[in-house]
Amino acid sequence: MCSLHMNVERFRSNRRNFLKAVSIASLSSLPPLISNSNMTSASRKPESLSNSFRKLDPLGELRIGMIGTYGHTGLVLDAIPAIHGARLVAYALQDGERLPDEAVKREDTDTISHDFGEIKKRPAFRSDTRVYKTYQEMLSKEKLDVVGICLPYSFNVFASIAAAEKGVHIMSEKPLATELEDLARLERVLEQTGVQISAMLDMRLSPGIRTIHDAISRGAIGEPILATAQKSYKFGKDRPWFYKERKTYGGTIPWIGIHAIDFIIYTTGLRITQAAAMQSNKALHDYPGTEDNVGILLKLSNGGTAIVTLDYLRPESADSHGDDRLRVIGSKGVVEMRAERVELMTHDDAVKTLPLLPKDSIFADFIAYLRGQGRHVIRPGEATEVNRICLLARQAADEQRIILV
Amino acid sequence: MCSLHMNVERFRSNRRNFLKAVSIASLSSLPPLISNSNMTSASRKPESLSNSFRKLDPLGELRIGMIGTYGHTGLVLDAIPAIHGARLVAYALQDGERLPDEAVKREDTDTISHDFGEIKKRPAFRSDTRVYKTYQEMLSKEKLDVVGICLPYSFNVFASIAAAEKGVHIMSEKPLATELEDLARLERVLEQTGVQISAMLDMRLSPGIRTIHDAISRGAIGEPILATAQKSYKFGKDRPWFYKERKTYGGTIPWIGIHAIDFIIYTTGLRITQAAAMQSNKALHDYPGTEDNVGILLKLSNGGTAIVTLDYLRPESADSHGDDRLRVIGSKGVVEMRAERVELMTHDDAVKTLPLLPKDSIFADFIAYLRGQGRHVIRPGEATEVNRICLLARQAADEQRIILV
Repeated sequence: MCSLHMNVERFRSNRRNFLKAVSIASLSSLPPLISNSNMTSASRKPESLSNSFRKLDPLGELRIGMIGTYGHTGLVLDAIPAIHGARLVAYALQDGERLPDEAVKREDTDTISHDFGEIKKRPAFRSDTRVYKTYQEMLSKEKLDVVGICLPYSFNVFASIAAAEKGVHIMSEKPLATELEDLARLERVLEQTGVQISAMLDMRLSPGIRTIHDAISRGAIGEPILATAQKSYKFGKDRPWFYKERKTYGGTIPWIGIHAIDFIIYTTGLRITQAAAMQSNKALHDYPGTEDNVGILLKLSNGGTAIVTLDYLRPESADSHGDDRLRVIGSKGVVEMRAERVELMTHDDAVKTLPLLPKDSIFADFIAYLRGQGRHVIRPGEATEVNRICLLARQAADEQRIILV
Repeated sequence: MCSLHMNVERFRSNRRNFLKAVSIASLSSLPPLISNSNMTSASRKPESLSNSFRKLDPLGELRIGMIGTYGHTGLVLDAIPAIHGARLVAYALQDGERLPDEAVKREDTDTISHDFGEIKKRPAFRSDTRVYKTYQEMLSKEKLDVVGICLPYSFNVFASIAAAEKGVHIMSEKPLATELEDLARLERVLEQTGVQISAMLDMRLSPGIRTIHDAISRGAIGEPILATAQKSYKFGKDRPWFYKERKTYGGTIPWIGIHAIDFIIYTTGLRITQAAAMQSNKALHDYPGTEDNVGILLKLSNGGTAIVTLDYLRPESADSHGDDRLRVIGSKGVVEMRAERVELMTHDDAVKTLPLLPKDSIFADFIAYLRGQGRHVIRPGEATEVNRICLLARQAADEQRIILV
């Protein structure tokens, strides 16, 4: 146990003992990295999860509740009108137990008030949609089939746990949880209740990622070997108060990096087995809790490599909010997305631009799954697994080491 | 010394005790990563090196010897005709002491014979250029001012040491050395003799990198914060025998990654303070010693982040051998190179394409420096320093940990 080279811990996650760390005493006992191509992960495989639960009636009413006004409320609200029988029954504005500090309470109230004013103008919001100050009250009074959760990021997990305890299915803003302990609690409750959860990882159904997923699935690049992803955002001038501290924001890896790690997993069909990360805040002086530059280095389950860069430094003069990119090179070709344009080059063919698959709704896709009408694009266990990887990558950055996922 | 968290070693390099590893007993004694922006590196700063040496006469004859026929011989040979007084006095084909294994000797001889046939057709090769079988013989018989060294990669350092011991300045293929111990030996000899060395890091004088260096130097993007570099190559069908083993090839990080790490250092003006890397060989079954996919994660001396990806998976159908890219985003803008096109976007201005600075000769630039006619684009100590970083990054991959450079 006392070797100069003792520097890697293997985290085994299971629902009973999530954080049991088994340290590897010496690197000499590890297989050399270069022959790791078939390394088995100690973590739970999403496929092994049971997904038996009582399906919702596809012809019946679908009673939806919303919790919170931050983040991507539109992913739920805008999908409702096209879903058969769907009705926004109730809207809860806040968490009744976890309130912002006094210093930002006024800002929080003003922001919620403004954003809720906009939300009420949307077609999904009905004259008979009941409004609650807290989700605790809403969950105790309403009978719901599914909730959408969009609170300040670190609060979301507690709303998910409360909803699951009431047997209500969940579409949560990502990350589902900003701390490993909270994620483990959530997983236990989901297992006990059979409640299904999905996360707003809507990039899986964006035209670019769908098209790359489709190309790789049909073997266009052979075996995926090296993936490079980028998310570069404008920070803007009016990010909410909870971006100022890690404890309320969660970090840029769980907030933005989760999309990139998720679409690498989704498009390549591979798992992540190791993670390292480096990050800092160099330019966002008023938001010390928000990392504005991040690099993540990942080992893929086939021995390949993935890289993610994240930044909040995109100039305000840019013609779009984000500059999302993905490049996957494999044994027989390379596929690449930039600005929603996807190009494929193979060993046999020169570069060609692929026709884009259409965008799809992550919420409608989840509802169809809950109604027994097909698979959800996020398979059972995947939303929690990618969340766990992000929190371990954040920990790897904090502790300046490589973590075996 | 016996903590579960003991996982980082700090390497201090000085010329007397290059490999003394000072282990950090506990992470709790390290400053948190996020406040590391002014972390001082324990490594030697290139600027502190003296560069006093006896200058060559700019009006006199320049006696050049070449050693080896592999790699980028053209960087020396093609520059000779335009350099005042320069003359290719002698050409040595091989290392007389380190010969390839019996199994590849014939292939080695055939390749040298073929390539030397081509070399003899170049304008720099004269009817009175003397040809030697070994550099040992050439160095003992010829009086030379400078040598170019292009042997199988792991042999180059020994030719450099031999040349330095004769007082002959050196333009070596990169990496200068493929092992830290050999690099340390070379540095000691250089210090003792005052011999000047440069490496074939010619990308510093390529149009794209020159243009990005110029833009960042004049403050176009503010402070550089996140750099992302890519080198993607075709592997082709006739790589030489020495790519088959690490001990002769050295690895893809020292061979290709060194360009990317070097141009990140050069364009940003920052140092590297930490390195992690992951790599494997997935597709090059006949060349087990050559990593075909590599990810490198680096911390910059201002607390920013850099990422490098390398691969040998570029489809043969591609319209160029390599797909080199660099993106540097800073506090006031972003500059980006792809296919020798450089674009700049700032907080004030939309995207614009920058006019490219012309390509320059790394060898001619080095000779001008040796003749006292100006600075060399690779400052004293920089070629050995970037070499050291690459070997530590390779070690970080082998040992699955982050190394403080």
